[in-house]
Amino acid sequence: MKVIDIEEKFSLFTQHWTPKIISELNGQQVKLAKVKGEFVWHDHTNEDELFLVIKGELRLEFRDRSESVKQGQMIVVPKGVEHKPVAEEECWIMLIEPASIAHTGDVQHELTVENSAWI
Amino acid sequence: MKVIDIEEKFSLFTQHWTPKIISELNGQQVKLAKVKGEFVWHDHTNEDELFLVIKGELRLEFRDRSESVKQGQMIVVPKGVEHKPVAEEECWIMLIEPASIAHTGDVQHELTVENSAWI
Repeated sequence: MKVIDIEEKFSLFTQHWTPKIISELNGQQVKLAKVKGEFVWHDHTNEDELFLVIKGELRLEFRDRSESVKQGQMIVVPKGVEHKPVAEEECWIMLIEPASIAHTGDVQHELTVENSAWI
Repeated sequence: MKVIDIEEKFSLFTQHWTPKIISELNGQQVKLAKVKGEFVWHDHTNEDELFLVIKGELRLEFRDRSESVKQGQMIVVPKGVEHKPVAEEECWIMLIEPASIAHTGDVQHELTVENSAWI
């Protein structure tokens, strides 16, 4: 049980689209990611996913619309909803999702990370 | 599924120690609270609890020590660990915890809120 400084954790990595685990509670993991460019369309059959924007702006594309999520804003993507995260400029996000989640759902892609690392 | 602005949600209430629910995912709820002064000693038998400080500084007292959690920092208090949140000045926090959690655990206190409200 220790205090986690979010900015300090972000200083420990530079890769895009590779979430790092910083904490765990009740079977959920808290992850940080730096993202830039377009991710891949995917959904998670059984897991809701929270996106909280720490810095910059994230666009979440859905099949019928898109939502812009800015610094200090968040959105929960419910299980089963296809989404594609996009960031024009580098954006820092916090994710909260079950430990069991697959990075790109059932989709295999060059961006897919099999097992997120702890930092 | 909509974008939630955290600062805007904080502008909707002024009471201290009365967490407001802003979102839910995988059986967990995301809550916002304004706190000032001393809360009551309690623990949660079955629930881990995440405290993320949005503004100000929160001191979490444990039976054997205390931790200061500042803006941009977080801590997870594991199930069963007694804690007492304290804030010298008003502090804004985000909580993530199971929907089933009791505000002050098994402790009944004048600060106890039976059912948190959504905002």
